[in-house]
Amino acid sequence: MTFEEARALFPVLERSAYLNAGTFGPLSRRTIDAVRTQLVEDLEHGRSGQAYWDRAIEMRAELARRLAALVGVESTQVALTASTTDGCNIVLGGLGLGPEDEIVTTGDEHFGLLGPLHACGARIVVASSDPDELLAAVTPRTRLLALSHVLWTTGQILPVHELRRRSGLPILVDGAQSAGAIPVDARGIDFYTISGQKWLRGPDNLGGLVVADPERLRVSRPSSFAQRRFEPDGSYEPRPGAERFQPNWVPMASLAGLTAAFDEAPVWGYERAAAQAGRLRGLLEPHVEVTIPAERATLVSFRPPAGEEPVAMVERLGAAGVVVRDLPGRGTVRASVGWWTSDEDLDRLVAGVAP
Amino acid sequence: MTFEEARALFPVLERSAYLNAGTFGPLSRRTIDAVRTQLVEDLEHGRSGQAYWDRAIEMRAELARRLAALVGVESTQVALTASTTDGCNIVLGGLGLGPEDEIVTTGDEHFGLLGPLHACGARIVVASSDPDELLAAVTPRTRLLALSHVLWTTGQILPVHELRRRSGLPILVDGAQSAGAIPVDARGIDFYTISGQKWLRGPDNLGGLVVADPERLRVSRPSSFAQRRFEPDGSYEPRPGAERFQPNWVPMASLAGLTAAFDEAPVWGYERAAAQAGRLRGLLEPHVEVTIPAERATLVSFRPPAGEEPVAMVERLGAAGVVVRDLPGRGTVRASVGWWTSDEDLDRLVAGVAP
Repeated sequence: MTFEEARALFPVLERSAYLNAGTFGPLSRRTIDAVRTQLVEDLEHGRSGQAYWDRAIEMRAELARRLAALVGVESTQVALTASTTDGCNIVLGGLGLGPEDEIVTTGDEHFGLLGPLHACGARIVVASSDPDELLAAVTPRTRLLALSHVLWTTGQILPVHELRRRSGLPILVDGAQSAGAIPVDARGIDFYTISGQKWLRGPDNLGGLVVADPERLRVSRPSSFAQRRFEPDGSYEPRPGAERFQPNWVPMASLAGLTAAFDEAPVWGYERAAAQAGRLRGLLEPHVEVTIPAERATLVSFRPPAGEEPVAMVERLGAAGVVVRDLPGRGTVRASVGWWTSDEDLDRLVAGVAP
Repeated sequence: MTFEEARALFPVLERSAYLNAGTFGPLSRRTIDAVRTQLVEDLEHGRSGQAYWDRAIEMRAELARRLAALVGVESTQVALTASTTDGCNIVLGGLGLGPEDEIVTTGDEHFGLLGPLHACGARIVVASSDPDELLAAVTPRTRLLALSHVLWTTGQILPVHELRRRSGLPILVDGAQSAGAIPVDARGIDFYTISGQKWLRGPDNLGGLVVADPERLRVSRPSSFAQRRFEPDGSYEPRPGAERFQPNWVPMASLAGLTAAFDEAPVWGYERAAAQAGRLRGLLEPHVEVTIPAERATLVSFRPPAGEEPVAMVERLGAAGVVVRDLPGRGTVRASVGWWTSDEDLDRLVAGVAP
């Protein structure tokens, strides 16, 4: 697939410089066609019957295999979820931590991780995202590290394997801004969340949760997928592997859509996305303050010139067909750069930022 | 709207005697059109921008108003969820019960309630669904009654308001087989779950949770919808009302679909569904053992004649274009009768059951 062919997959790119995959990825015609084909099936034939259930089982298994392959784990270690928030809640709800326990996180996390951290009852220790400083926050009471692989604020890549190894602690990695954006190897990571609707360009809401050792995490939010058989008081024999954590049915149309989207990622995707993100940083640097972490992914954050609020800049750019977002409380604007991003998209953004 | 017009809404009814709304309701052309229209919008214009967020907020609020009106509560008492399982997990995760506490339930509950009950840590007391016997199971340690409004096994309607009043205990009512099937008044009920994909004929996965007093239930699974503002350690100021319990983003296409489905329910819907369910019981009674509870809704359960397993009967009926389900462990087959069910649908089922 050439870049021009890849680009042509996404109708939204004909209309705008769409630079917000960090919230929702662009949708391809083929993805939406797969969704619509299943919807017509549901409409005409109904959502029932043995063939329907058999197909749902096979489609879930197929998607679990794709997600597993994406991050280098076994498909029996993957549960399908609605979101990375869902995944964080499943893990933190299952660990059984209390006020005597501590969890170390960074000061740059999304509420999709922070909310579940707060709810789990442990003491949350907020540290710097610098690995040495972060590890210095570990105490004998620390039970878990919980942080993003790629910070949603700056695009900084955290050395999650190094942190796991040096701390010797279990680690929950929020993969919202990594899976599909940069190569990910989740082997050796205890818990890893994946979003299907961002860099993997799938329909909302669908994602995955990797649990390295499913037998050792309590199922905090059982659904029918948790059990193989159950008693009238709700006690049950769990299904094997991570499927037990799947908190809800997944619409067949969504399964079809995300699976179709998987097939469209080109082999040169990661490399091109990184290069284009680098190009954008270089283009912006003469004009605005750009955050350039040492290890960086495909998010590019910058501070608008004095006198313009981020919200106002985002609105002004939006009116000019350039889709980015502001980061509340940070004073910055964020652009998401994918393998589908053209030089012209970047030029349009830069022209809007520094007219 | 006449019955013939109502019937013509659902393409699946042209193909089969679709009698499984207790799992998934039939989908109308208009519902799927609303879903597809939004998907094309997402495809062409992208899932971002101020207008997109504003519209999502309005659509969520509109759906919350519909769900609230359906069961007679305020829209600020309704959270959008993915399923009734989701709702049960949200409530039971938030109550903070432990092994010293007891919850009384019936012996006829679905795992969508039983799984969350088991996970919450309280002692689960399984009682009869007879109100007097159920209340006899209450002890000084009982903290909650948790049961269905309509039993998924037999279609029996439980007197949830009477149970609430006589016990003086908080009550969690699983409305999976009631909302949209029979008139529901959830006023005075502490927690009430609603499925959008069954009797309300919406796309999967979408439903609602009524929390009578949102301030008094802990948010066990926070998502971005929980907070108005938050600190780096995840502590936050909750949003007003029940919106704080919404565990995930809801796809705009799903919001559009369920809202469209709401508008199609005829004023004579409840009455006709009850009458047709009664007619089916009468038609089946000469041939098979039919469960006929004193207070009954729109589910009709019966035992296949000796010699035929429920699974085999369901498969045989399915091959003949009659869609019902078996109830594992109960030895029965269940037909779901809606306002869209014709006399001919019922005759086809009866002809298949007693050839």
